[in-house]
Amino acid sequence: MLEIRPIMATVGILLCGLASLMILPATIDFVNSNPDWQAFFVSAAITLFIGGVLALSNHGEAFFSINLRQAFLLTLSSWLVIPLFAALPLVWLHISYTDAFFEAMSAMTTTGSTVLTGLDGLPPGILFWRSILQWIGGIGILVMAVFILPFIRSGGMQLFALESSDNSGKVVSKAHQLTVWILCIYLFMTLVCVILFRWSGMNLFDAINHAMTTVSTGGFSTHDASFGYFKNPSSHWIASLFMTLGALPFSLYIRSLTKNHAALYYDSQVRSFILLLLGVSLVLALWLEQEQGISFITALQMVTFNVVSVVTTTGFASDNYLAWGAPAAGIFLVLTFVGGCTGSTSGAIKIYRFQVLWLIVRSHVFSMMSPHRVQTITYNDRVITEEIQRSVLAFLAVFFTTIFLATIVLGAMGLDPLTAFTASVTAITNVGPGLGPIIGPDGNFASLPDVAKWTLSLVMLIGRLEVFTVLVVIMPSFWW
Amino acid sequence: MLEIRPIMATVGILLCGLASLMILPATIDFVNSNPDWQAFFVSAAITLFIGGVLALSNHGEAFFSINLRQAFLLTLSSWLVIPLFAALPLVWLHISYTDAFFEAMSAMTTTGSTVLTGLDGLPPGILFWRSILQWIGGIGILVMAVFILPFIRSGGMQLFALESSDNSGKVVSKAHQLTVWILCIYLFMTLVCVILFRWSGMNLFDAINHAMTTVSTGGFSTHDASFGYFKNPSSHWIASLFMTLGALPFSLYIRSLTKNHAALYYDSQVRSFILLLLGVSLVLALWLEQEQGISFITALQMVTFNVVSVVTTTGFASDNYLAWGAPAAGIFLVLTFVGGCTGSTSGAIKIYRFQVLWLIVRSHVFSMMSPHRVQTITYNDRVITEEIQRSVLAFLAVFFTTIFLATIVLGAMGLDPLTAFTASVTAITNVGPGLGPIIGPDGNFASLPDVAKWTLSLVMLIGRLEVFTVLVVIMPSFWW
Repeated sequence: MLEIRPIMATVGILLCGLASLMILPATIDFVNSNPDWQAFFVSAAITLFIGGVLALSNHGEAFFSINLRQAFLLTLSSWLVIPLFAALPLVWLHISYTDAFFEAMSAMTTTGSTVLTGLDGLPPGILFWRSILQWIGGIGILVMAVFILPFIRSGGMQLFALESSDNSGKVVSKAHQLTVWILCIYLFMTLVCVILFRWSGMNLFDAINHAMTTVSTGGFSTHDASFGYFKNPSSHWIASLFMTLGALPFSLYIRSLTKNHAALYYDSQVRSFILLLLGVSLVLALWLEQEQGISFITALQMVTFNVVSVVTTTGFASDNYLAWGAPAAGIFLVLTFVGGCTGSTSGAIKIYRFQVLWLIVRSHVFSMMSPHRVQTITYNDRVITEEIQRSVLAFLAVFFTTIFLATIVLGAMGLDPLTAFTASVTAITNVGPGLGPIIGPDGNFASLPDVAKWTLSLVMLIGRLEVFTVLVVIMPSFWW
Repeated sequence: MLEIRPIMATVGILLCGLASLMILPATIDFVNSNPDWQAFFVSAAITLFIGGVLALSNHGEAFFSINLRQAFLLTLSSWLVIPLFAALPLVWLHISYTDAFFEAMSAMTTTGSTVLTGLDGLPPGILFWRSILQWIGGIGILVMAVFILPFIRSGGMQLFALESSDNSGKVVSKAHQLTVWILCIYLFMTLVCVILFRWSGMNLFDAINHAMTTVSTGGFSTHDASFGYFKNPSSHWIASLFMTLGALPFSLYIRSLTKNHAALYYDSQVRSFILLLLGVSLVLALWLEQEQGISFITALQMVTFNVVSVVTTTGFASDNYLAWGAPAAGIFLVLTFVGGCTGSTSGAIKIYRFQVLWLIVRSHVFSMMSPHRVQTITYNDRVITEEIQRSVLAFLAVFFTTIFLATIVLGAMGLDPLTAFTASVTAITNVGPGLGPIIGPDGNFASLPDVAKWTLSLVMLIGRLEVFTVLVVIMPSFWW
């Protein structure tokens, strides 16, 4: 029998934390004499009450000794319950709870698809709340990627297991120390980003909000025009830089700072990621320069921003890249699948899985030519075991199956095939915009039917939790 | 150094065979006093001459002792060279050589995408030639699936290696006997199909042509309306049956006839395949009955025909299923990927790879819950070894990468994203129709730019040869 009381206690504590965060936008709106502060206040009270009841009634349950199955359930339930409550203040905007939940889930998973329009006219508290949700969603996935995902052996993540947790039944060893490191780096990165955005000409409120949604590779903006609102190219370059930084492995930042200063520089995943961004941006910029007759520097800025935004799964828009010309749609659709590095705030398939795939394909081609040569494949000095291969294969199978099923479900609600397919893709990869007139980079998810919004919320969650966390928990044998 | 003379000799012999087949449509058109017979005659002369030179100048080279690398090259070069010559008579229709080659490659790979319109008014010789090409394409892939693919260990096909070739360096043991069996079954199936089509009201010419393109799961028709031309529901049911029969493993037919009469019945791939067809058809028929207010029997006939046509990668159209309602496009797009059983004339991913994937995903989910339990996965009483897992993973990686690259290339030529993507999918899966107004079930590939036609011809070939045959041969290390 699964002991769920430690899980309820932890979720309770997280809800109390969420409630206290609601005080920030409440204060902003109160200071600005905006009646919205009441929405946050009431939501905070409800959240605090339920969180407190959960935490206190399960008080004393040892969080630090949860087992594997509890780790699965804790992960899934936190990522489900927090958006449920985080959505509460948004209902004040006279949007339905469906819309509010979609927005909250999109924020927490750092997807950045939105159902809201007229962002420029919204109360600052609401805008700040959306940014806070993306920011804490980012920290949530960072902590999860370091501790939970390698431990539950999801999709080849065991390649990145910390030595100490390799043979241990406990999730959280060295947890405290590493969490502090990650939080410090994340906070520091956000602060530097705020300062640079401010320097580039944003007002302080925009600088803070966009810094929070940039380093978390979330992609929410305070303007309907998204990043297109900011005309200074410096802002775009700064955003490109910090989206990239947010998509690098945070464990390597720690290692670079503490042990090996060149850890980032020599990491093969980081190298491939940076080379990919540079290569694609350069080629597309040369093409766009020709195609649109603009200067190379302008083309490079436009292209780099949008490529980085999609590949890091941020999803800011600065231009409607679908209008750039014929191949753009296909290229951006393919880029949507890529994702950043593991152990970062970005989603999607991620660079290391492509590297593992490439190593496997290469080894397979060689073994087809010379069937009797035995080969061991290694990645970053770790052997790609049969278990890891199986893991990556299983990840991709479930990943694409989810996309297919979601496409059919969305199609059944009357969405055209392109919208249905790219909405599913952009949700599971946590990118944000899809293709086509409805949900493209200058579109919006507001007009989708309610059931589609719930479906996409689920798909975002599945993507964020790397597919298997959800799959394992819904298996009957998990429970009995 | 690779010895290519046995390959040239074999290709030469195949070309002589092709030339002699051209006499059939030449005779038909001559009897019908159609000047087209000259096109076939001239093409036959050219083909016979070049084939003869190749065969005779490399005479005496031992075909039966080719090695692994030669097997790769022979496979690829036959599937490239035969369409090059098979296209010759079509140029007589005043279409470009690009169009003719596309049509020939589409025929030989049993894809069934066409660039021709006004089929009903074409000379019977041309129509018969297209059917012949699909029919011999079918026999080509059958022979290849039994001998070559398991031997070159492509995409998990080693699961189906014949016992005798498991540890042998020679491709063709038991070859003669099995080829005769396959040819007899294929011929017998075609004859029964002709008789039943004739019984259902088709004229003899239509019955012969459609029988040839049905059992080969090719999908060419003699009418622009494709199977929609035939109003008798029996014709549709007969076609559904024979498309299904063409998509079953031919090695199991042989085993059922010679050793174990229940071999087909107990095979897990066959069972899953049939259950999938029945399940999807039933659900869609119930939905279509509701949606369109037609009788269940009519709905079942329409749905079964189109589902079977797409899943077996035949690609006949009887209705524009895209007009059935919202979810149809998504469902048919997903079905396009499925494919029939291995060792059949059908293409695409194929049932057994889905089964292997499912077994791997299930085993992975269990191992996530109980990491220390060691599991062996078996399929049809064979262990799914690490090599087979790697093989399947590599297949899927290259399969989807090809689709992505082709989508980008087609997009760069100005095709809209839906057409670019579904054209790539339908080409690599050898199905035939895509989605959207241009290449949908009532559309046509004629309006695509030339480069797109060459690209799609290559993608059809890649799909037909299960991806790796092409990839291995283009590796530099294959040659040196």
